[in-house]
Amino acid sequence: MSGFIESLRAALGDDAVATGDAIAPRHLADWSGVPPVRPLALLRPRSTAQVSVALRLCTQHRVPVVPQGGMTGLAGAAQPMAHGVALSLDRMQAIEQVDAATRTLTVQAGATVQSVQEAASAQGLLFGVDFGARGSAQVGGALATNAGGNGVLRFGMMREQTLGLEVVLADGAVLPMLRPMQKNNTGYDLKQFFIGAEGTLGVITRALLRLHPAPSARATMLAAVPDYDAALALLSRLQARAGAGLAAFELMWRDFVQAALGWQQLREPFDALHPLLALVDLDGPDATQLQAALEDVLTPAMQDGLVLDAAIAQSEAQARAFWKIREATAELPTHMHPPVNFDVSLPMAEIGRFATACRAALDARWPGHASVFFGHIGDSNLHVSTDASTIGGDVEGLEHLVYDLVGDFAGSVSAEHGIGLHKKPFLGRSRTPAELAAMRAIKGALDPLHLMNPGKIFDR
Amino acid sequence: MSGFIESLRAALGDDAVATGDAIAPRHLADWSGVPPVRPLALLRPRSTAQVSVALRLCTQHRVPVVPQGGMTGLAGAAQPMAHGVALSLDRMQAIEQVDAATRTLTVQAGATVQSVQEAASAQGLLFGVDFGARGSAQVGGALATNAGGNGVLRFGMMREQTLGLEVVLADGAVLPMLRPMQKNNTGYDLKQFFIGAEGTLGVITRALLRLHPAPSARATMLAAVPDYDAALALLSRLQARAGAGLAAFELMWRDFVQAALGWQQLREPFDALHPLLALVDLDGPDATQLQAALEDVLTPAMQDGLVLDAAIAQSEAQARAFWKIREATAELPTHMHPPVNFDVSLPMAEIGRFATACRAALDARWPGHASVFFGHIGDSNLHVSTDASTIGGDVEGLEHLVYDLVGDFAGSVSAEHGIGLHKKPFLGRSRTPAELAAMRAIKGALDPLHLMNPGKIFDR
Repeated sequence: MSGFIESLRAALGDDAVATGDAIAPRHLADWSGVPPVRPLALLRPRSTAQVSVALRLCTQHRVPVVPQGGMTGLAGAAQPMAHGVALSLDRMQAIEQVDAATRTLTVQAGATVQSVQEAASAQGLLFGVDFGARGSAQVGGALATNAGGNGVLRFGMMREQTLGLEVVLADGAVLPMLRPMQKNNTGYDLKQFFIGAEGTLGVITRALLRLHPAPSARATMLAAVPDYDAALALLSRLQARAGAGLAAFELMWRDFVQAALGWQQLREPFDALHPLLALVDLDGPDATQLQAALEDVLTPAMQDGLVLDAAIAQSEAQARAFWKIREATAELPTHMHPPVNFDVSLPMAEIGRFATACRAALDARWPGHASVFFGHIGDSNLHVSTDASTIGGDVEGLEHLVYDLVGDFAGSVSAEHGIGLHKKPFLGRSRTPAELAAMRAIKGALDPLHLMNPGKIFDR
Repeated sequence: MSGFIESLRAALGDDAVATGDAIAPRHLADWSGVPPVRPLALLRPRSTAQVSVALRLCTQHRVPVVPQGGMTGLAGAAQPMAHGVALSLDRMQAIEQVDAATRTLTVQAGATVQSVQEAASAQGLLFGVDFGARGSAQVGGALATNAGGNGVLRFGMMREQTLGLEVVLADGAVLPMLRPMQKNNTGYDLKQFFIGAEGTLGVITRALLRLHPAPSARATMLAAVPDYDAALALLSRLQARAGAGLAAFELMWRDFVQAALGWQQLREPFDALHPLLALVDLDGPDATQLQAALEDVLTPAMQDGLVLDAAIAQSEAQARAFWKIREATAELPTHMHPPVNFDVSLPMAEIGRFATACRAALDARWPGHASVFFGHIGDSNLHVSTDASTIGGDVEGLEHLVYDLVGDFAGSVSAEHGIGLHKKPFLGRSRTPAELAAMRAIKGALDPLHLMNPGKIFDR
């Protein structure tokens, strides 16, 4: 292997190849809780050409490669391998172009999501993806995991923001799929193959992203609803009234609301305790019109019994106060020991029945367990977090219970975090053997030596 | 081969297997002008299970398969092969489910686009894709070509409408990728591979499609602009003001307007003759607000010289009259002998320069040629149609001229119609050898015997 490392140093420069203790700890594990692993070497190329050279050398020496972004992943997809190299994109963080006229942005994959948001904002535009790890998460990692987050209802996930990608394959071939056209039906849409592939098909080095006009006004509402079907009906009415202006529809079950208020020492938002709270944002050009739209929906919804109580924020401070309840998720690591977090999706009509069935199964198996239910319902995405200390630390039993139920409801074991290592045992709950065989065939076609992040998503 | 045909008859039933003159003429060629070819047999399965059996038999006998939808394609992708079977989906046209609450629709691939639109409309919803051939084009064909059309600016192409697909691979394996979640990050997003693959990777048998709230109001404007950059600035201001409410932004060059008015014996819409006309639709819940939004943009745009003259439709009849100019494209086959139609896309900022350069090159080579320029500018899509009789019938020369120029401008030789047979010689203008090699690798992985629509998009 010393010849291999030497050839990397010769090709990339000494400063781009670290080994042993010179590898910073943050490259040894992501945020998922997987055990840290020290790779053979950490590569920090400065250009697409250097990524290509590095991958060619790895192919020549049959050394596996684990691409790394900001290491904020929650599924273990960026965990290094002891006999492989880690390839960090953190020196490739240029925002190369922001084109306000066509609302596009060209960026190197190592730029943070936040830096893309800021570059868009400087031109009066908006990047459609946002999530908590924005300051560390890199564009390449967000693409490799098809990240979602707060803006999905309005703008979709990373896939929907992507007009083009530049990707380097395991053999060093560069695919320059960066043409900025909205419409481009010239054979297979290759870039789609790499979005959400968690680095197992190639290394994303650059991206051409869509931007959106920045909304100039927002209206926020907190509404108590009697049951899940009422929440779904409210969502439907909001979408009919506001169309694409509906920017958020978050649903919080009572268990979540109670924990969120307690952790943050907040007061109950309504006089009565309600089974479910919906948090709604509308975006648009005119605040008065947005408030009117909320009222147009709210009045008949209350008459029809779909909404039990509601408040439309009359100031930004009040809107922030409503959102503070939802953002209690940042407190999970402090108040659960530790939290076991699920990120599942389900057919939208089934989420209520799933939550009821899941809570009943948890109650039966671990009486007194602490679990909270909440989610981006408009995206069909439900989060469940359980305090491991309240189930006797039986994380494996919990995962089997939840994912088996997800399988029964024809749901997905990963809505947005990806499979990585963490959910690999459960992928079969959401994919058939024929689908997994097709994935393996594609993997073999683009990475015949199985050197690109091997063992992530599925085994060979 | 008689044993093969017999085994098909035994498996599918006599009525599902036609040969010789029993094959209806419409199965011999699509709308692209390719010469008709009589296949070995026409298969008309009634179910996914029958499609699977048929493909398994074709694989056993090493017989190529050409999937067929409504035969309205414009690139020759559905042209049969004399030594292969044609597989028509026209008996699989059930709309299986419309779920108004989650705004999704499940449909067999042989249903027409129009039947999907009507099923959505019956529930007060809208299907986001619409184009002229809606009454004949089938969902499967529209997916296989990633069709675009009139609604792309607001809703995207077929890809963006697709939550799930059921696909049968060449070996008969069924991929049931029909889970209805907006978010589903469980390994590779396999369905993406088949959208736009023109039937070369498998047969799409069912689709789960997104629907949208039907807009209740529309406002329409016709605006004369001095040049392309002014049109782009107007587009940008409209998007900033109306956001996703901007439903159409069509641009028509003077040559198109003049031909359109002449063919349909319409009067000039403005007192002066202007270099470019933009046709704009805004959709939303309230007609008065939409008109106000148009006026909000129009007044400063006229002051700034971006708009020379404009009219906001005051009635549906007036809106239809504006659109009649744009819809003169239906007259192209009558008035050009015959028309040679280009469907290219370009970086949005470059469309004006491309149109100028293209016209200059045509003028230089074929003085007196009749060509019209128009397009869905908001989608980066430009159409050019030239009367072949005015260039001495030199279609090949014309194609080389236009596609070479598209390559020079880093554009796409096919925005929405696809490659099929027709544009195969020009695919290299828009794709690099590395990209083509990756496509071939994927083809080989999913269809190792090269039986699925071989020779379309690229040669082996």
